[in-house]
This record gives sequence, C-alpha cells and structure tokens, in this order.
Amino acid sequence: MDKPVDKPHDAIAALLAEDLAAVNATIRERMASRHAPRIPEVTAHLVDAGGKRIRPMLTLAAARLCGYDGDDHIRLAATVEFIHTATLLHDDVVDESQQRRGRPTANLLWDNQSSVLVGDYLFARAFQLMVEPGNLRVLEILSDAAATIAEGEVLQLTVAQNLATTEDTYLQVVRGKTAALFSAATESGAEIAGAPEARVRALFTYGDALGIAFQMADDLLDWLGDSAATGKNVGDDFRERKLTLPLIRAIAKADAEERAFWQRTIEKGRQEEADLATARALLDRHGALDSTRATALDWAERAKAALEPLPDHALKGHLADLADYVVARLR
Amino acid sequence: MDKPVDKPHDAIAALLAEDLAAVNATIRERMASRHAPRIPEVTAHLVDAGGKRIRPMLTLAAARLCGYDGDDHIRLAATVEFIHTATLLHDDVVDESQQRRGRPTANLLWDNQSSVLVGDYLFARAFQLMVEPGNLRVLEILSDAAATIAEGEVLQLTVAQNLATTEDTYLQVVRGKTAALFSAATESGAEIAGAPEARVRALFTYGDALGIAFQMADDLLDWLGDSAATGKNVGDDFRERKLTLPLIRAIAKADAEERAFWQRTIEKGRQEEADLATARALLDRHGALDSTRATALDWAERAKAALEPLPDHALKGHLADLADYVVARLR
Repeated sequence: MDKPVDKPHDAIAALLAEDLAAVNATIRERMASRHAPRIPEVTAHLVDAGGKRIRPMLTLAAARLCGYDGDDHIRLAATVEFIHTATLLHDDVVDESQQRRGRPTANLLWDNQSSVLVGDYLFARAFQLMVEPGNLRVLEILSDAAATIAEGEVLQLTVAQNLATTEDTYLQVVRGKTAALFSAATESGAEIAGAPEARVRALFTYGDALGIAFQMADDLLDWLGDSAATGKNVGDDFRERKLTLPLIRAIAKADAEERAFWQRTIEKGRQEEADLATARALLDRHGALDSTRATALDWAERAKAALEPLPDHALKGHLADLADYVVARLR
Repeated sequence: MDKPVDKPHDAIAALLAEDLAAVNATIRERMASRHAPRIPEVTAHLVDAGGKRIRPMLTLAAARLCGYDGDDHIRLAATVEFIHTATLLHDDVVDESQQRRGRPTANLLWDNQSSVLVGDYLFARAFQLMVEPGNLRVLEILSDAAATIAEGEVLQLTVAQNLATTEDTYLQVVRGKTAALFSAATESGAEIAGAPEARVRALFTYGDALGIAFQMADDLLDWLGDSAATGKNVGDDFRERKLTLPLIRAIAKADAEERAFWQRTIEKGRQEEADLATARALLDRHGALDSTRATALDWAERAKAALEPLPDHALKGHLADLADYVVARLR
C-alpha cells in the first residue's frame, strides 16, 4: 500500500491557490443579499468557520486535471460549496445540533427559522450559479446530486433505530450524506473541461469511492474514538441509535441473546451506563470493526484505481494520496 | 371596471383539462422515491389537500396563449408546483403552523425533520425537472425566482415587529412570498413557447402584478375578516406583529400617542384584549384599509393592462377575469 502523505489537500490547495482564491471571492460575492442582512451573517459564520473546502477543491482539481483553462469551474466549485453549506444548516436543525467545527451552530446563535430559510437561499444561489456556465450535462449532474442528497437524508431519518437496515441501505445513506456531492464535484469538473466520456466516468467513480471511504472511516471512528479528527465523542452513533456499518454487521451475526440486547438498546432506546462497553465487545466478537476497516480501505483502493485512465499530472498523484489520507486515521 | 367572473380558475382549468391531468401525473411520478417511502407520504398529504393549482395553471395558460404546442410546459408547471409545495413545508416549520388548508400540517403529523428534508427533496426534484427541457433562459427565470422567494422569506423574518418597515420593503416581502413564483410561472410559460420578448415581458408583468394584488388582498382580509376565504382569523397578523400594508400606512400617519400604542403592541408585543379593536380604529382613522384596497385594485388593473400586447385567445379573457377575481373579495 502507498505511504500516506501528510496532508494531500494542502498540496492540492497549494497547486490550485489562485483558483481557490477565486472560489472564495465568488462565495463571498454570491452569499451577499441586498435586502436581507441576516443572510450573510448566518453564512459568514459557517463559511468562515474554516472547512477545508474539500468539495470545491475536487471540482477544481478534476477540471484542471482534464486540461481545462476556462473559468466556469470556479462557479461550479462555489455551487458545490453552497450546496454543502445549505445541507449543513438544515442538518443542524434536523439533528438539533449545538456545535459544528467547534463553534455554536447557526440554529443556536440565531434560530431554526433562519437556518431553514438561509439554507433555502443558499440552495437557490447554488442553482443560479450552476446555470451560468450554460452546460446542460453539468446541470443534470448537480441537480441529480441534490436529489440524491435529500433522498439520503430522509432515508436516514426513516432507518434510524431499525435493526433490519441492510448494507445496501447503509450505502444509499452514505451516498446521500457524502458521496453524491463528492462524485458530482469531480464529475462536473471533468464535464465542464469537455473531457472524453471515459475520463468523466473515471472522475465520477473516484469521487464516489472517495466519499464512501471518507464516510465509512467517520462511522468507524465513532466507535474507535478519535474525537480530534471527527469532532464527535466515542459512541455518539450508538447513543443516537444510528445503524452504521459496524453495527449492521454485528447485528447480522447476533445470536438470540445479542439480538435482545440490540432490541433493547437500539430499537427501544433503553440504554444504561455499561451498554456502550457491551456493544463494543459484541462488535469485537464478530470482527465488525476490522471488517468495516477492510471495507473502507477497499473503497479507498477503488478510488485510486479509478484514476488510472487519467492523464499524467501532479494533481493525479495528490488525488490518489487524498484517498489514502481519508482512511489513514484507521491504520 | 369589468364584472368579476364567478371562478375564472375553473374556466381556465376546463380549457386546460388535459394539460392539468398531465401535470398531476408528472407530480405523482416525480414525488415518488424508490428509497425513502416517507417522501411520498408527506407530499401526498400536501398535494392531495387540493390546492387550486393556480401556479401551474399560470404556466400552462401562458404557454398555450403564446401558441405553444409542445409538452415541456407540463414539466415546468410541475416544477412550479414543487417549488410552491417545498416552500409550504418549510414555511410551516418556520411559523410552527398547526393547520394548512384545513388539515394538520406535515410538521405536526410527522416532525420538523421530515418537513425540512422532504422540502429539500422537492426543491431538488424541481431543479431536475426544470433542467429537462434544456432551455437556459427558463432555468435562469426559475432559479432567480427561487432565490427571490428565499430572500423574501428571510427578509420577512428580519422585518417582523419593526415599525420602520417601509412600503418598499413590504413589496419586496410580497414579491418573495407570492409574486416571484407567479411571475416566474407566467414568464417561463411564455419563454418555453418561444414567444417574442414583448409577450414574455407582458406575461412576466401580469404574473408579478397578479401576485401582488393577491397577497395584498390576503393581507387586507386579515384585518377585514373573511376567514372562509383566507383560512385565517381576523387579526392574526396583528397578534403575530406582522407589518403589512394597512399597518405600515397607519404607522406612517401616527401621532405621538398612536406611536406609543404601536410600540407597545407591535414592537414590544405587549398586547391586551381590547388592543385589536383599538388597532382597527386607528387604521380606519387614517383610511389605511381603504387606501390598501385601492392599491390592491390598482395592481389588479395593472395585471389586466399587461395582457394588452398578447394575441386574442379565450385564455386572455380568463386571465383578465382572474385578476378581477383575486380582488373581488375586497369590493
């Protein structure tokens, strides 16, 4: 396996510094509102909170890797970040979150109303931005991603606490939460560059696999613990009765007594102090953490393999490193 | 002034029966979700609640009036209804509403989470639908409308209880709440028909003025009372401290004592039993209800005048009647 590079997204950011500066300028310009000053207040709070801009970087990298020398990729990258920010605002309302990236959430600082409506505003601004390049294929990619994201979020709501949740359903939720926007980011970058179908396809597959590896690693770290990396406490998903891959795999192998334990703690939500340790022991007994780790590493390998048909370029190596990086926390 | 026809939207629905059936079929088909059965449950609840489908009807009528004989107007009409339904779902969360069209709201039947996320899903489906005809000008019109709607909603949030609210700001809020989608509905119908610029412009102006007349009439009826027509109780806006046109005009003419009354009841929200009657008396003293009625009727006249450059067609007369109809309740 390749050695994981320290911070491949920093290397990408350095190569694309000018593009990223243009994306940030577009974001600031387009989130302004002449009429409703509440909007930039709320969004600035989120946008300044310093996400890593992974998603817009993927769009920029895909376009440049395919030899693009125009500037429509800037608008698409800003679109992708707006969609991401809008979903964060709505997620925090849905989850009644209090913190995001170590700062109080917008729903806490303002109110749920502002989070819902400013999220809607960012969605609308995203659609305005994506229309501007006038590329219908790109519009299909991004509007399909928006639908997959929303569908995945609703699906997640309806499968919580459901012990019958399958790995297929889990994958669908993961695509909605994370991978759909990653793959739309890379695919639309390739498409705006006018890349041949095989390269567009390759970059779609890369983004999809990268997003799945990333989310799976996050779900695993919820059990393994690494709150510096995830910003979550160990066992949050268990306490919130979320069916992620480790749990799904342990439940699939549960005997009658274990099943009763999961019914009480996950289905009925009657949890006691010692239950998290018991749950963890059951996951270990069935190798559910190890097998989830293996699956996440496999998705990272698929992401790297997908890059194969792409032209030689410094960015190609960095994107491969990025796939290693998102699972490096698991080794 | 023309005599107001009984129900011009019924006349339009009869003329466009086949188109409307196709719109309903598209709505049912596109709100389905293979993965998340919660979605059609929530939307069916709203879609079946039997709105009058005024907005999609406007798109269909504008396209047909401009001689369109394709079928892309069906998709655009469904888009407009999806955007409308999504905003209703989010509005009910924002307003913490309990009832809509005489039925319990989705946020009450399911939960706020479902309303937020299913609303997002409908927005995304709307964008997928509007991309399909492949007309970039239509995409601009509809994505601009979505941004104006969201901006107007946030603006409404930030001007509530603010005695300094101007008529300009009120008009901006009204465009966001109602007129932006009406005008996008008519304009996109004309545009998809390939109508010449003057007719596109005319139908935009008609939709804008119709929407403003409609919302102004609603705001006036909140003071005059007609709960059968509005589904609201007299004085709801006063109790919720909403600055609508009658109130804005009465406040503009307030003497010092009246101003103190408005500061107590609207700014500070300290309302007592007798305050609604006092407020109503102050509005009467300054002729604020009569002048709002005159302004609403004037917008209805502007809507009718806008139709002038359009070709002779049965629908043209019905659209003029519709403008009379939305203010007929005020006569």
